[in-house]
Amino acid sequence: MARNITPRADDYSQWYLDIIKAAELADYAPVRGCMVIRPTGYSLWESIQHHFDEAFKETGHVNAYFPLLIPNSFLEKEAEHVEGFAPECAVVTHAGGEKLEEPLVVRPTSETVIGHMYSKWIQSWRDLPILINQWANVMRWEKRPRLFLRTSEFLWQEGHTAHSTREEAMEETLKMLGVYARIMRDILALPVVEGEKTEGERFPGADNTYACETMMSDGKALQAGTSHFLGQNFARAFDIKFQNQNGDIEYAWTTSWGVSTRLIGAIIMTHSDDDGLVLPPRVAPVKAAILPISTNEEKIASTLLPRAMELSSELDRSLGGRCTMVDKQFYLRPGDRFFQHLQRGVPLRVELGEKDLAAGTARVVRRDSGEKMDIPLENLASRVPALLEDIQSGLFNRALAFRRKNTAVVTTYDEMKKVLEEKGGFVETWFAGSKDDEKKIKEETGATARCMPIDSPGEGTCFFTGKPGARKVIFAKAY
Amino acid sequence: MARNITPRADDYSQWYLDIIKAAELADYAPVRGCMVIRPTGYSLWESIQHHFDEAFKETGHVNAYFPLLIPNSFLEKEAEHVEGFAPECAVVTHAGGEKLEEPLVVRPTSETVIGHMYSKWIQSWRDLPILINQWANVMRWEKRPRLFLRTSEFLWQEGHTAHSTREEAMEETLKMLGVYARIMRDILALPVVEGEKTEGERFPGADNTYACETMMSDGKALQAGTSHFLGQNFARAFDIKFQNQNGDIEYAWTTSWGVSTRLIGAIIMTHSDDDGLVLPPRVAPVKAAILPISTNEEKIASTLLPRAMELSSELDRSLGGRCTMVDKQFYLRPGDRFFQHLQRGVPLRVELGEKDLAAGTARVVRRDSGEKMDIPLENLASRVPALLEDIQSGLFNRALAFRRKNTAVVTTYDEMKKVLEEKGGFVETWFAGSKDDEKKIKEETGATARCMPIDSPGEGTCFFTGKPGARKVIFAKAY
Repeated sequence: MARNITPRADDYSQWYLDIIKAAELADYAPVRGCMVIRPTGYSLWESIQHHFDEAFKETGHVNAYFPLLIPNSFLEKEAEHVEGFAPECAVVTHAGGEKLEEPLVVRPTSETVIGHMYSKWIQSWRDLPILINQWANVMRWEKRPRLFLRTSEFLWQEGHTAHSTREEAMEETLKMLGVYARIMRDILALPVVEGEKTEGERFPGADNTYACETMMSDGKALQAGTSHFLGQNFARAFDIKFQNQNGDIEYAWTTSWGVSTRLIGAIIMTHSDDDGLVLPPRVAPVKAAILPISTNEEKIASTLLPRAMELSSELDRSLGGRCTMVDKQFYLRPGDRFFQHLQRGVPLRVELGEKDLAAGTARVVRRDSGEKMDIPLENLASRVPALLEDIQSGLFNRALAFRRKNTAVVTTYDEMKKVLEEKGGFVETWFAGSKDDEKKIKEETGATARCMPIDSPGEGTCFFTGKPGARKVIFAKAY
Repeated sequence: MARNITPRADDYSQWYLDIIKAAELADYAPVRGCMVIRPTGYSLWESIQHHFDEAFKETGHVNAYFPLLIPNSFLEKEAEHVEGFAPECAVVTHAGGEKLEEPLVVRPTSETVIGHMYSKWIQSWRDLPILINQWANVMRWEKRPRLFLRTSEFLWQEGHTAHSTREEAMEETLKMLGVYARIMRDILALPVVEGEKTEGERFPGADNTYACETMMSDGKALQAGTSHFLGQNFARAFDIKFQNQNGDIEYAWTTSWGVSTRLIGAIIMTHSDDDGLVLPPRVAPVKAAILPISTNEEKIASTLLPRAMELSSELDRSLGGRCTMVDKQFYLRPGDRFFQHLQRGVPLRVELGEKDLAAGTARVVRRDSGEKMDIPLENLASRVPALLEDIQSGLFNRALAFRRKNTAVVTTYDEMKKVLEEKGGFVETWFAGSKDDEKKIKEETGATARCMPIDSPGEGTCFFTGKPGARKVIFAKAY
């Protein structure tokens, strides 16, 4: 049925791009590496934003906005940070018709400028914690761009918090990791693994980085979100100090955490099939498309369209929000209309033809399985919510089963190489190597340490160094 | 009572900045001319966004996202456009560690890059209209920055639509002007005048510009939003063509329209007083602050705080959303807590002390008038919505009366000069002068043609040239 989508088995990369094109999610922009997020893609982003933003607010965070441009000298204040980000920066050298005294970088992330402001706002322990989030665009110049996964400009949220104690900052770091994991699992149907990053994969300037790692349908890993414990590194660099309850001056403890439009890439590569995009209902902006179908214009106007509009309102009410649409593209053939919603990943298609209406039913088609059902019109509003939930849990369970099937446990480097060569996927093992060891493994196998799962305590023997007391680590090739 | 706010009568500019500082709305950023929107200010922006975004969606618009960086050559494709914006642009010359082949400007507005994309997306009359809006940051380098009113970076929305006929594009231009005016009046309580801009005040590249003009409490005008009829100018520059129903190729007709964080400046300068910010209830993120007051910690924990939380939930339910808060800053003196909410413009303060609770009442204080009422707790949820509506309409009516009082009708240049010198405000007159005449008037009086009100038909004799057939024009000094 896929008329313009390369089969996944033939060329995974092309399949991914074809899905995006067919669903009209995004386009490359005229500036190399940048993207245009088209209305279908942006409404998906708005839905993702909505769920995360609610969760941030429920956990006591507030939104704010910090400037796009950051003085170059700010980046240099934190040694690891500048080393990590400077090579990727876009730099403004002229403005208002003049050369600037100091070049300004377009923010690649905002720890530095936010740290600068926090140092002004924080004086006393009473000013803490500061729990701020920002929704913004950021820029990291990409040599090999890929829509949603690696673009020179992308949209994201970045949380930045400051605390009076190490414990509280660590608690925040893990709390937000948990918030991310919950939404990714419950709403985006991504069976993520929560874990700590190894030294070689940490955020530049962080003491610890935690991440949600998830497996794409080609077995490769994708980092879907990160939460950083920054210790006192940025507080020292930007002089974020406060007077504690005993009257002593201390440096604050800070965290940062972010998810981006990359999540759209994760959704595509987890759930979609050779017919196009498949969206988990809870994040789908349009959960059901209702299609009155007839060639008789009078019938459409007098009965089919009004009944379709009614059904749409009923469904919106039973689902609690505007999340259905009535397709009025009568100038297209029914097959083309079906196909459009299929390619855009709409979870349910509700067809309403003259015969259906005469029989008092609608033909409901599931996007995930293609299953067709004739459902009495009066039962539609009560049946659809459960159908959507069934699709939602089905997608999650399928992705989880896929990850489990494609996760191998190994104890030696030879085993690891064999698995990575022959079938890919996640490789679970014990590891106690250094940053250099990680580099070597990457060079030799293409795989990186994705994370040390937080729910896997215990110790083993390192597959690479033979050292005892090694932690459980997942290795995989990654996006 | 204003402890840290310069009286408005002493120094209007300083009063404005003091209000922003006291309410913690925004701060200057380390990069000259840029601002940090603090949580209190950003939640106000989120509320403004919410109302506009809803209205855009109700009128059939969808959101999308276009790139931040625009090739310099794009700006040059439309002669007036580049002349208007190039001097204000920030320019990226280096990225990813290399000098770019072509400099990229940080978008000052997005007609050019959106026009480029529309030329790819539009082929047939079936692809029209395209009704897209974008929420984004833009950059126009400011020599004399002023928080919210003129900052080098600001947040805004920009609508960009393409149509198959001149009539439809003009209808869209005026429809969105009307949407703006309705929200500004009904939600922001700004009594705006809808009008057409004179030639000298048009958007660079537009055939016509329409604006909502509103009067600040110092009598100066502020342009609160604009809607542009772009004719076929950008369609020609970017080759946006379509095949019409007869099979002929035509250029599309486009519009653009925008409102920005400047609206926050308009709200401040319309409604606030010497005690601080005053917010119209419909746009206030916090509509009522509930303050349990006692020095007895046990009483707070056992009765006052739980009852306050209950009241907050009841009020949220009766107002339809999370829009009340319970103030738990027990470490502050009650006076300081009152003062904080006063300065932040919270429409109603609900004080709940031990005596109030014993009497079964709460003390409710209006931000607009300072009026205090003891309201039985069981009536609070039913009384508050009406109280808020009374504040809302009171603020609008006061602003409207102020504008009327400060609008003078003149027929000669001498009269105009006299009014502008002696009392300022809006000057209504007949005008048929040229762009050069407008320039001369500005040089001599400091006033500009704000707009030709759309509800003022008729013709008169031009006060400046003596020509007949002149249109009604409002002149004023403006922000």
